[in-house]
Amino acid sequence: MTLTLITYDWLPEFPRGFVRDLRVRWVLEELGRPYLVETVPAHPRSEAHREMQPFAQVPVIRDGELTLFESGAILMHLGEGTALLPGPRRAEVTQWLFAALNTVEIAVIRWETMVLAERIPEFFGPAPAGEVTAHARQELDTKLAALEQAVAERDWLAGAFSIADVAMTEVLRVPESEGALEGYPVLSDYVARAAARPAFKKAMADHMGHWQQADAARAASGQA
Amino acid sequence: MTLTLITYDWLPEFPRGFVRDLRVRWVLEELGRPYLVETVPAHPRSEAHREMQPFAQVPVIRDGELTLFESGAILMHLGEGTALLPGPRRAEVTQWLFAALNTVEIAVIRWETMVLAERIPEFFGPAPAGEVTAHARQELDTKLAALEQAVAERDWLAGAFSIADVAMTEVLRVPESEGALEGYPVLSDYVARAAARPAFKKAMADHMGHWQQADAARAASGQA
Repeated sequence: MTLTLITYDWLPEFPRGFVRDLRVRWVLEELGRPYLVETVPAHPRSEAHREMQPFAQVPVIRDGELTLFESGAILMHLGEGTALLPGPRRAEVTQWLFAALNTVEIAVIRWETMVLAERIPEFFGPAPAGEVTAHARQELDTKLAALEQAVAERDWLAGAFSIADVAMTEVLRVPESEGALEGYPVLSDYVARAAARPAFKKAMADHMGHWQQADAARAASGQA
Repeated sequence: MTLTLITYDWLPEFPRGFVRDLRVRWVLEELGRPYLVETVPAHPRSEAHREMQPFAQVPVIRDGELTLFESGAILMHLGEGTALLPGPRRAEVTQWLFAALNTVEIAVIRWETMVLAERIPEFFGPAPAGEVTAHARQELDTKLAALEQAVAERDWLAGAFSIADVAMTEVLRVPESEGALEGYPVLSDYVARAAARPAFKKAMADHMGHWQQADAARAASGQA
């Protein structure tokens, strides 16, 4: 059954390497599942996009008759019954998947949007005062310190590598890219081990290749 | 099999009615499952708490041999195979559960922590300038407007009432409590319909009763 991954047609430099189609590509590579890529316009979003995805976000997948959005739900759907979400560890894997996409990511995004507002206010809005960002960083550090302790006790979150590790790595790569994992050797090592997996490397290469092709297509069509 | 819900021993007024044990109580009432309540200290958090829940958050449940945290994972575990998470609509329900706990809640909490910082800075840190909060509100409004359209097309998110509606209602009750759903008649009606369910009313009564008992116990022991 053909699987299709839908992502944006083109994006500027700053989100590349962090767009959420990457985590879906990663899981598909782990599973050895081939897939096609289709695109939707990023600017402006299309009605066809909103019909598939009410928030006009990516990724979306089509898997046979099923069209599905939300990367957490896509990871669960793809992982179902495989070594990445095995039945006997379903509850434990799901627990850590939500820890990544709710508990940790809420703290990451709250802080990261403040940091990005300092660099790209035209996209992220006015930057708050330094003490506000510092407080958000403290809140994030509370979560990271707890996670550092938890990960110190295991190789992977739910015993063996799972979709929860894909999600947690993707969430942690954001503070890592800002140097905010420097005080967390266990988490730094965890992200490095996950990113050393051949499936991650292939997914990242294809993800970045997608944007490079998009650049080339724009150049060929005379767009800046 | 006895089910135990673990929540805090006592909390001040402001988070009552919004603590995440409520959504678990709600699902248990929908399913007609009896449960026991145990508590962990809120201030300071205990080591026993951290051993069950690395981030020292609530809720946690014990269901037979299984100890489980993250309310999203608990909802999936309890709903599994029931009308609240039926097999044939598993992917669709999961999609909307993540829409609630990732896409919508991230925008809600980013804005809500700014609003709360104006009222309770000793807990939520220094308040950002008004223009920063206004930008976070715009980002939230983008999500709410998209959700308003999506909900207008259906009674419940995934066809019939599911754990996704429990989670989305709980996420939306936060902006509702700040008057931020006023421009969204469909979402206001959605939350009102969900909150009118007998299971929600029973869960809320028991949730608030828990804090009242905790107040009485503190008063009896001579604490303020």
